[in-house]
Amino acid sequence: VELGERSYQVEIGAGNISAAAAHVNNKNKNARVAIVTDEVVESIYGEKMVNAFEERNITAGTVVIPVGEESKNVETLAMLWDSFAELGIDRKSVVVALGGGVVGDVTGFAAGTYLRGVDYLQVPTTILAQVDSSVGGKVAINLHAGKNLAGLFYQPRSVVIDVLTLKTLPEREVRAGLAEVVKYGVIWDESFMGYLEDNAAKILAIDPEVISHVVMRSVQIKAEVVGSDETEQGLRRILNYGHTLGHSLENLAGYGVYLHGEAVAWGMAVATRISAEMGMLKYSDADRVLELLKKLSNVPKPADIDADELIAGTRKDKKAQAGKVNYVLAESVGRVVVRDDVDEGLVKRVVEEHIERG
Amino acid sequence: VELGERSYQVEIGAGNISAAAAHVNNKNKNARVAIVTDEVVESIYGEKMVNAFEERNITAGTVVIPVGEESKNVETLAMLWDSFAELGIDRKSVVVALGGGVVGDVTGFAAGTYLRGVDYLQVPTTILAQVDSSVGGKVAINLHAGKNLAGLFYQPRSVVIDVLTLKTLPEREVRAGLAEVVKYGVIWDESFMGYLEDNAAKILAIDPEVISHVVMRSVQIKAEVVGSDETEQGLRRILNYGHTLGHSLENLAGYGVYLHGEAVAWGMAVATRISAEMGMLKYSDADRVLELLKKLSNVPKPADIDADELIAGTRKDKKAQAGKVNYVLAESVGRVVVRDDVDEGLVKRVVEEHIERG
Repeated sequence: VELGERSYQVEIGAGNISAAAAHVNNKNKNARVAIVTDEVVESIYGEKMVNAFEERNITAGTVVIPVGEESKNVETLAMLWDSFAELGIDRKSVVVALGGGVVGDVTGFAAGTYLRGVDYLQVPTTILAQVDSSVGGKVAINLHAGKNLAGLFYQPRSVVIDVLTLKTLPEREVRAGLAEVVKYGVIWDESFMGYLEDNAAKILAIDPEVISHVVMRSVQIKAEVVGSDETEQGLRRILNYGHTLGHSLENLAGYGVYLHGEAVAWGMAVATRISAEMGMLKYSDADRVLELLKKLSNVPKPADIDADELIAGTRKDKKAQAGKVNYVLAESVGRVVVRDDVDEGLVKRVVEEHIERG
Repeated sequence: VELGERSYQVEIGAGNISAAAAHVNNKNKNARVAIVTDEVVESIYGEKMVNAFEERNITAGTVVIPVGEESKNVETLAMLWDSFAELGIDRKSVVVALGGGVVGDVTGFAAGTYLRGVDYLQVPTTILAQVDSSVGGKVAINLHAGKNLAGLFYQPRSVVIDVLTLKTLPEREVRAGLAEVVKYGVIWDESFMGYLEDNAAKILAIDPEVISHVVMRSVQIKAEVVGSDETEQGLRRILNYGHTLGHSLENLAGYGVYLHGEAVAWGMAVATRISAEMGMLKYSDADRVLELLKKLSNVPKPADIDADELIAGTRKDKKAQAGKVNYVLAESVGRVVVRDDVDEGLVKRVVEEHIERG
């Protein structure tokens, strides 16, 4: 990923998880590594990762956080800082984020602020983390008032992706992560969209060769978008396709009801439909997007959701400025634009078509 | 302060505290300002500051934190984030840090991480904050394991210094802050040292003209040092004169026993003496430093402190790398060097001369 001075390497492979240790310099005899992970990932990869470091004569300690979005809070952040102090992490040390997006986000925040920034390595083990949170340097925690409200831009030293970790992932999580993969096709690359359509079965079966290509192309697209706009002033906003309404749904339903990728899949479905209704996108293209979303992902049909409340929630998004809400809308498969003039009456009508009446 | 893209303005005056409001653009009708301050500063300047914004049609809310170093923790940080959300702070909003170093540090951290960074304005009301924490962009909170262990580099949009705020400061705090002023003379500018010696009485009486010059020259020196070394790899380390041992004393004595400036004054006295004992600094120059330190500041003589524990504490400093402890030592008045080869036996002997035997 090229970001001027702060560029870093993304290594994608199958069965290469132990190679993460090679990204830490073992010349410094006092090197200490803190591996942050969650309970589930720890039980599968924890020992393997510690051994990989010990084999290179690097002392590695493990810090385990509870599974789930609830861990992405200030208490976990404070616990990580305290753990780094206990493990003797200094400015030459390296922190490893081993797990999904929650682990990556809170660990990146903690690493980026401990001693005003120590190096960290991302080893994402979910498809969502591999194609999304591992690239772009956005790290954050949730506040009571909303998701990702506190955070910073902090780039990892490098990212090591082992697609075989996806074999141990529940299908629901695989499908949630694939919503973001479909997003990259819609916002940037019509031919990638074609590849996804042609290889849907192999993708869902985690065929190593196909999934490696899918992850690699997704990472490339994100890097292309982010690389030209590191601090989110312009182009980068197109990555929020499906996120304006998706975030609001997550908030309204309460954390834990929908996975992030499911809420985003729903938001993409609605945004795609709005694009068609506004005459920007051909209905046949909208159908193509919706069909692939359903095939690779899960598009929930939320019940007991009030459309007005959902729309009110979009105005609280941290990207909302001076009360204006940005929507990313499609003009064709592979091309989107950011609009802040979308009629809320239309939004409400389309939202209501996408929720279950009680 | 020139820091390439991130340069900002430092305005120094007498009676200019309300001018802070002029640094916020009032063209944005939805502009919101959050003024963070402590209980004491709020009682003196809170209303005045809110009015200054209201007169410019900018909605300002106040967030009050308890006085003292104990507030510089993760709980206050979380409280500030939540308060920003309640006050409707968005990416176009401005946060104002009105108070001493504690307010500045925790507010800067909160502003630098809320929505991944909103603009903030420093209005420092103590001499220490005016000459030290308001320049350089280092913001932090304390952890159980030590001071300033979690933080980041985050530059304010501008700094507004009203030296008349020093009139309401207790003498103990004025003297503590002046330790850092003496430091600038020792590390950088022999003629400034002469000015301080010639004007000691007026400085302690907070003569507006003299104290303005003292604050301005201190800020300039810090800016010169920091400007050439924004992320603390080299030259900036000379600002830690007196801090290696000073921080350790603060930790060992427990927060609240000594003011930061008092611990630094003590650390400077010890470092100056070590410099002379190592044959780097003339004894007459060492005496000159110690005399001015005693005249303008307070050099405590700690009791019940174990020299070995104090020295052990220096190894835990976040600037210690691979077990090596850096000491800033003087070669002359106006010139210092960083050394990591200081004999701990010598350090122990000099430390013991500077503590009260029980």
